[in-house]
Amino acid sequence: QDITNNKFGKGLVNVVAKDSSYSLKFAARFQSLYTGSWDFPNNDNLENGEGQLLIRRARLKFEGFAYSPKLTYKIELGLSNRDISGGSEFTSNSPRYILDAVLKWNFYENFELWIGQTKLPGNRERVISSANLQTVDRSLVNSEFNVDREMGFQLHHHFGLGEKAIIKEAFAFSQGEGRNVTTGNLGGYQYTGRLEVLPFGDFDDYSGADLKREQTPKLALGVSYDHNSNAVKTRSNSGSYMTTDTGFFETDINTFFVDGIFKYQGFSAMAEYAKRTADNAVAVNSDGTPTGRVVEVGDGINMQAGYLFKNNFEVVGRYTQVALDETLTGEGIENQYTFGVSKYIVGHKLKVQTDVSWNDYENNLDNSLAYRLQIDIHF
Amino acid sequence: QDITNNKFGKGLVNVVAKDSSYSLKFAARFQSLYTGSWDFPNNDNLENGEGQLLIRRARLKFEGFAYSPKLTYKIELGLSNRDISGGSEFTSNSPRYILDAVLKWNFYENFELWIGQTKLPGNRERVISSANLQTVDRSLVNSEFNVDREMGFQLHHHFGLGEKAIIKEAFAFSQGEGRNVTTGNLGGYQYTGRLEVLPFGDFDDYSGADLKREQTPKLALGVSYDHNSNAVKTRSNSGSYMTTDTGFFETDINTFFVDGIFKYQGFSAMAEYAKRTADNAVAVNSDGTPTGRVVEVGDGINMQAGYLFKNNFEVVGRYTQVALDETLTGEGIENQYTFGVSKYIVGHKLKVQTDVSWNDYENNLDNSLAYRLQIDIHF
Amino acid sequence: QDITNNKFGKGLVNVVAKDSSYSLKFAARFQSLYTGSWDFPNNDNLENGEGQLLIRRARLKFEGFAYSPKLTYKIELGLSNRDISGGSEFTSNSPRYILDAVLKWNFYENFELWIGQTKLPGNRERVISSANLQTVDRSLVNSEFNVDREMGFQLHHHFGLGEKAIIKEAFAFSQGEGRNVTTGNLGGYQYTGRLEVLPFGDFDDYSGADLKREQTPKLALGVSYDHNSNAVKTRSNSGSYMTTDTGFFETDINTFFVDGIFKYQGFSAMAEYAKRTADNAVAVNSDGTPTGRVVEVGDGINMQAGYLFKNNFEVVGRYTQVALDETLTGEGIENQYTFGVSKYIVGHKLKVQTDVSWNDYENNLDNSLAYRLQIDIHF
Repeated sequence: QDITNNKFGKGLVNVVAKDSSYSLKFAARFQSLYTGSWDFPNNDNLENGEGQLLIRRARLKFEGFAYSPKLTYKIELGLSNRDISGGSEFTSNSPRYILDAVLKWNFYENFELWIGQTKLPGNRERVISSANLQTVDRSLVNSEFNVDREMGFQLHHHFGLGEKAIIKEAFAFSQGEGRNVTTGNLGGYQYTGRLEVLPFGDFDDYSGADLKREQTPKLALGVSYDHNSNAVKTRSNSGSYMTTDTGFFETDINTFFVDGIFKYQGFSAMAEYAKRTADNAVAVNSDGTPTGRVVEVGDGINMQAGYLFKNNFEVVGRYTQVALDETLTGEGIENQYTFGVSKYIVGHKLKVQTDVSWNDYENNLDNSLAYRLQIDIHF
Repeated sequence: QDITNNKFGKGLVNVVAKDSSYSLKFAARFQSLYTGSWDFPNNDNLENGEGQLLIRRARLKFEGFAYSPKLTYKIELGLSNRDISGGSEFTSNSPRYILDAVLKWNFYENFELWIGQTKLPGNRERVISSANLQTVDRSLVNSEFNVDREMGFQLHHHFGLGEKAIIKEAFAFSQGEGRNVTTGNLGGYQYTGRLEVLPFGDFDDYSGADLKREQTPKLALGVSYDHNSNAVKTRSNSGSYMTTDTGFFETDINTFFVDGIFKYQGFSAMAEYAKRTADNAVAVNSDGTPTGRVVEVGDGINMQAGYLFKNNFEVVGRYTQVALDETLTGEGIENQYTFGVSKYIVGHKLKVQTDVSWNDYENNLDNSLAYRLQIDIHF
Repeated sequence: QDITNNKFGKGLVNVVAKDSSYSLKFAARFQSLYTGSWDFPNNDNLENGEGQLLIRRARLKFEGFAYSPKLTYKIELGLSNRDISGGSEFTSNSPRYILDAVLKWNFYENFELWIGQTKLPGNRERVISSANLQTVDRSLVNSEFNVDREMGFQLHHHFGLGEKAIIKEAFAFSQGEGRNVTTGNLGGYQYTGRLEVLPFGDFDDYSGADLKREQTPKLALGVSYDHNSNAVKTRSNSGSYMTTDTGFFETDINTFFVDGIFKYQGFSAMAEYAKRTADNAVAVNSDGTPTGRVVEVGDGINMQAGYLFKNNFEVVGRYTQVALDETLTGEGIENQYTFGVSKYIVGHKLKVQTDVSWNDYENNLDNSLAYRLQIDIHF
């Protein structure tokens, strides 16, 4: 057995080469989740209670630099069944094991070129690692509207403005089919742009909860626009394939996000607005008859806030609304109200999170209640 | 290249943090197996000889403690196709990559709470790692009756009794659907209890062969009882799903084990009795007609003994009987006689094992002979 | 964080035990590939342009020695969907995650016994790691004729002849079904023999490009012969299963390779001839009617040469011809002409490769053009 200077939460292996030719932080993490759920029609009686236990996420991560500190890399692999599901004929019928495999090259001043597969610069909630959430999991707005991971190129840049403000820009050019697709590019490419402003200086704007208890107010605002040219899936680069009698229905799908995060002395708030539109939302066959698939157009809003007590307990509240276009999708408005409590034992590296959610559908018949308890360990 | 103080067999990477905030033992292992098999109807002539070569098991393992030595973790991943097979709609059509992902918290004196997915406290043969067997593989009794791995909670406790004796207790509460199920909990939960007595003190009671050549006789006895409430599979939490015209056939399935292991001066013996019962063994449709699936009720016995010579060769003999309820399952009694020889080059870490088995069925027509040769390496 | 003496390109973790009981080199790598392709019927107009982005290969590798420097091991795992595809009922419907899992035992002088799964001693192009190619990917001759990886035994030997010459021999006995097959051995075994001559002494004969700029001419010649007894797949141990009305069509398939590689002062050339024959190439049902499957008999030739400039740019040209037996397979001759440029930033460990290929079919109607750009990182 060897002695390491490394600490818990900084990777299982964390080394830098004496000749500065590479570094490696290797980490593992997993989440154990219990979910209890009940139907709650018309908010009358709790019915059909059910409990489930799951390794929700489990990951291996390799990060560091290679050759030069200006060339960084990240490989993240999914291990749990939920992580790797989604295999189909479009992924050589193989599980989607790779989450990230990306090189980031700081080729000039504040410019960075990303090559490979990783998250698009979409909504903030999606880009915050699932390990760093202040809730048990991301919101319904994220699951409905996020633009996920893609294979392609990204250009990132940032600069200071005035005394404190920071501006960040990102542009991505990608395949538009989601991660690990091996059978070619259906339809056209996907283009994503994002602009961020941090008026009061840099902070942990991609991490939930104000674990650092910022001494001055910190704010980050972001706006993203995504255009997926001739997309063939109901949620742009994710969702169901819109197959037709002759192949695939193709239509331009656009996704728009505005988001913000605020942190101050243990208090944190995050809000997000998302909207998806499509040139032709209804997928039709060659003779113009509907295929039954429809692009999930509509919008959603998520607002959440938490307060971290001195003992590292946090209370958090969340309100989420998803409003798909009812005339097209037949789906009414869904509201979700969540109340949660987290105990950060070692920040986001070892924590217990629990919440209860009330799902309130427009028709009230499908209403439901869910309780979740999750333990996270992240080396 | 760096120099490590670690040794072969103690992990590929084996570190502890200077600040005692974590430790890691990372290990890999794989087994290369040759199997030759012949039909042997009525024990007359060897017919239809066939040979097969296989990477039988291949694993990556991460173990250690995190945050505090009182909180230990284990992640074990399967790599070989036999390890990860079993994907279905219930596992998001994904391979079952995760074997173990569990946290063990020694929260008070001799009490330990386990959270996550790992082996249930069932029969001894199953809980002994497949890397530490004194035979090429586990017995038919184990394959037929074991209660495998589960997602859930376990409470372990142990205490001394008198001068030497040790008592160990374990209780598990789990989902009852097997490992990596992602689509919810069918039927009810699974409850497992186990009691163990080590009257002559602690020893390697979960490892085959007396590699330590115990100087005084050592014995461990165990009894387990498992209740899977409203189980939907023919072997409790494994086997085939009992589908019906309306969904799943649910019945309570109970499994009972008694086992023991004895070691003394190179001699070791292990015995196991297993019995499975069900409230309603015959799965029926909503109109009462049989679906064709039947819970595999019945019992089995396994007895094996080995002697380790000074040169680390071991000879081992094994007798196994599986007796399913013939009126329900239509399966007659199967006896298996195995004779094996192992060479432990570096204990269980580098070994060559070989055995020959005669499978003797009640009808004699299906009798067969099998020869196996396996090489195991385990860092 | 710890300081390591290791360097980029020598593994992410590279350790040897102080007591010489084991060593480990753990490496990761991945390739990001862009492919643009166009139909080019009758070499008239470029049509139907399409672009695709892909993590082409991603791997984890574990190598070193165990117990004694005379016993070495290699485990290589595939991560990308292209790496792990090929699951079927014959692989327990699981992805084929393991590429290599092999022990190599230098049991006597220059003899080495290999046990497990790894590449057969077939054509040179196949045995050269996909990380060490001087082109973006291997040639069509390789994809059509290579004998891939197998589970089994190999015996390797080498000896010196005269002042400089080296002779290497290898013989393999394997299952003949390809990698990770778990459902038994269909048909008979596979036997592979290879003989190599290096008349001017040892050099990097299993690596593309003359990165070492050999000061004296270096040459390696090889010949392989492979016999797959009662094979059931159209390309021996790969390709499609030849199913019939009663099971599988079995026929002996033989593959023959001659290859050579030459390196001198930055110039390198590689050539390969491959030929596949079968006892009965046309798979038939029990009543003699053709099943539609045919063993892909025929031959192919690949020739390529490159020159490495002082600035580590290399230009490379390649000519490939695949000529399947047209009367049996209905496939005409395919010629491919490739021109490529590579920049070796850190040898094969960090490089950018690009090439353009013209595919010229006998009928000219299927002609096509392809452009590829690939970035490789290999720790």
